[in-house]
Amino acid sequence: MYSVTVRGHMMIAHSLTGDVFGPAQRLHGATYVVDVEFRRDHLDSNGIVVDIGKATDALNRVLAAFSYRNLDDEPSFRGKNTTTEFLARAVFDRLVAAIAKGDAGSSATGIESLRVTLHESHLASASFDGRV
Amino acid sequence: MYSVTVRGHMMIAHSLTGDVFGPAQRLHGATYVVDVEFRRDHLDSNGIVVDIGKATDALNRVLAAFSYRNLDDEPSFRGKNTTTEFLARAVFDRLVAAIAKGDAGSSATGIESLRVTLHESHLASASFDGRV
Amino acid sequence: MYSVTVRGHMMIAHSLTGDVFGPAQRLHGATYVVDVEFRRDHLDSNGIVVDIGKATDALNRVLAAFSYRNLDDEPSFRGKNTTTEFLARAVFDRLVAAIAKGDAGSSATGIESLRVTLHESHLASASFDGRV
Amino acid sequence: MYSVTVRGHMMIAHSLTGDVFGPAQRLHGATYVVDVEFRRDHLDSNGIVVDIGKATDALNRVLAAFSYRNLDDEPSFRGKNTTTEFLARAVFDRLVAAIAKGDAGSSATGIESLRVTLHESHLASASFDGRV
Amino acid sequence: MYSVTVRGHMMIAHSLTGDVFGPAQRLHGATYVVDVEFRRDHLDSNGIVVDIGKATDALNRVLAAFSYRNLDDEPSFRGKNTTTEFLARAVFDRLVAAIAKGDAGSSATGIESLRVTLHESHLASASFDGRV
Amino acid sequence: MYSVTVRGHMMIAHSLTGDVFGPAQRLHGATYVVDVEFRRDHLDSNGIVVDIGKATDALNRVLAAFSYRNLDDEPSFRGKNTTTEFLARAVFDRLVAAIAKGDAGSSATGIESLRVTLHESHLASASFDGRV
Repeated sequence: MYSVTVRGHMMIAHSLTGDVFGPAQRLHGATYVVDVEFRRDHLDSNGIVVDIGKATDALNRVLAAFSYRNLDDEPSFRGKNTTTEFLARAVFDRLVAAIAKGDAGSSATGIESLRVTLHESHLASASFDGRV
Repeated sequence: MYSVTVRGHMMIAHSLTGDVFGPAQRLHGATYVVDVEFRRDHLDSNGIVVDIGKATDALNRVLAAFSYRNLDDEPSFRGKNTTTEFLARAVFDRLVAAIAKGDAGSSATGIESLRVTLHESHLASASFDGRV
Repeated sequence: MYSVTVRGHMMIAHSLTGDVFGPAQRLHGATYVVDVEFRRDHLDSNGIVVDIGKATDALNRVLAAFSYRNLDDEPSFRGKNTTTEFLARAVFDRLVAAIAKGDAGSSATGIESLRVTLHESHLASASFDGRV
Repeated sequence: MYSVTVRGHMMIAHSLTGDVFGPAQRLHGATYVVDVEFRRDHLDSNGIVVDIGKATDALNRVLAAFSYRNLDDEPSFRGKNTTTEFLARAVFDRLVAAIAKGDAGSSATGIESLRVTLHESHLASASFDGRV
Repeated sequence: MYSVTVRGHMMIAHSLTGDVFGPAQRLHGATYVVDVEFRRDHLDSNGIVVDIGKATDALNRVLAAFSYRNLDDEPSFRGKNTTTEFLARAVFDRLVAAIAKGDAGSSATGIESLRVTLHESHLASASFDGRV
Repeated sequence: MYSVTVRGHMMIAHSLTGDVFGPAQRLHGATYVVDVEFRRDHLDSNGIVVDIGKATDALNRVLAAFSYRNLDDEPSFRGKNTTTEFLARAVFDRLVAAIAKGDAGSSATGIESLRVTLHESHLASASFDGRV
């Protein structure tokens, strides 16, 4: 199995609902450094998993829709806790849709699975890993 | 599959037995920076894999039992080489027991597998990965 | 010159005022991974620059007063842009006061200068460096 | 499952053929920081996955055959694009051959799979993962 | 003293002349991950050292003139060894010129000194540090 | 001012004397990842600060004299606390002596100052910085 991983980031505000979150129930924020691993069993005719430039552009467009925002105000997240693991899945879903639309280039149509990891600090991260 | 990873560390002395270890047969020591990945297929009702605070506390309690000690003196390791890979398994086993006792919070009862990685330097690490 | 550096972090929400900030004028947030370097010319009688445990505790208390908050609501920052460089200075000033009160232990009274660095992403950081 | 990961690096020149590569069609170069994960289900009688010293030596010998060279001149890569993912596979294949010859020590004969990751910058990496 | 540090990178081919360089006398290449620290004693009226976005753009334009090239073919480097330390100075000189032209924004006119660091691997880096 | 930084590491056992050290009064150990910055105002005729290969070899020889040892048994450290900051100075002193003997190559005779940093974990490090 081959893979290529690219990195981006987003900076957001949010609050979390539930006693389990302690002080994170208050409005606060995070920088998420985001790694996306694109995987496939065979390279394409150019010898690549994915066009790194186009894959990075597609990731950055997905992240721009979150970045510099208060996620508490996003209609699509109403009633949800935007935890790091939840956001890893949200980035995954939007990136899968972007790949399907061709935003990550034609080589990306051969991608079989993705792993999206959000690093929230030097001490913690969360991932969602699934088939495209 | 969702996952959350948290980090801790421990500083220990030990020696290793066997020609394969060369100068590491002498009494020496190591800092192990420890990453634990907690995995499950579905988030709980709070939208989390595990309570990061409680998971970190559980990891730190496991590591405290090793830290600032000479592992050559630990009865439970008698006759064993406390290699990095062996210690990754030891941390895994103790953390699985801690989860079963509820030390990592109630959300941790949904954890399906763990990966424990010990970084011994900027050049080498070892992991144990298994089902809970 | 000797130095010891310890690390902590804080997660905050804020917004910035001025065209120069572009989309960061909206309410958003950041994780700041914070490194503090404590410096002095000579070690104390224990052979240390500072008690690492107490210095870390003092730093964590300073950071706790910012963390999991919306800095736009903090009275002490009214009318100020809480940029990364501004916050590096704010952490510096509060840590100098904490050292003076003895929060970082008695060895810290020998500290001559500090450097506070806030990493806001894998691409950018800011520092304030000054005499105590 | 147990694993041990070791790190090396190589510095090479090359060019890539195909419009998808944009400016990387020109002769340029890269530092690849290379991580190799060695995996097996059970530890050997010394309590190890592999002799870290010998595994590192085997990796360094494989990398030395690439390093400080223009890969466009390597006969074995003629007609191929030496992309990061292609090179991850090339390092994998050569390391598997080295293990079979005993270059990574006798404990390495128990290795079941390898993952080879080449980091080309702070923003991108590629891997090949397969059974030995 | 305040500072802001931003990161970019470049990927180049080159060769070095002189026995001291050993195998690096052959045509090879490198990824340089480049950190630039911008310093000044006082923040401007926006509370910043420099506009991070414009400073990053200015750095990226400087690096683009090197990137994806064989530095042995650059007329301005004829007769020079393009060592990591030499290139740190070259990036410094070009960035100082860019600041003077206003490429890094008006706040950058207050910058007093710069430190440019090129990381060539996980084991080595070089810097040039000087007044603007 | 130009500088070049190289990295090595050592793994040692030791104990520390004094209430300030808490549990670190027990025999334990550490991995120290060691960065040494070599500085000078002008490059030599080859365009370098120091021969990176020879500087790394000199550092590794200095570190080998500590590594895989119990520092409590080293006669030269009798009656001293081998804290991270103390060891940073010890590495500095031995490296300065090695440079004077020519162990780091002839270009190293132009080195004006050194900074030695020992990273003891992902959370703490110590340095000694001085003129050669």
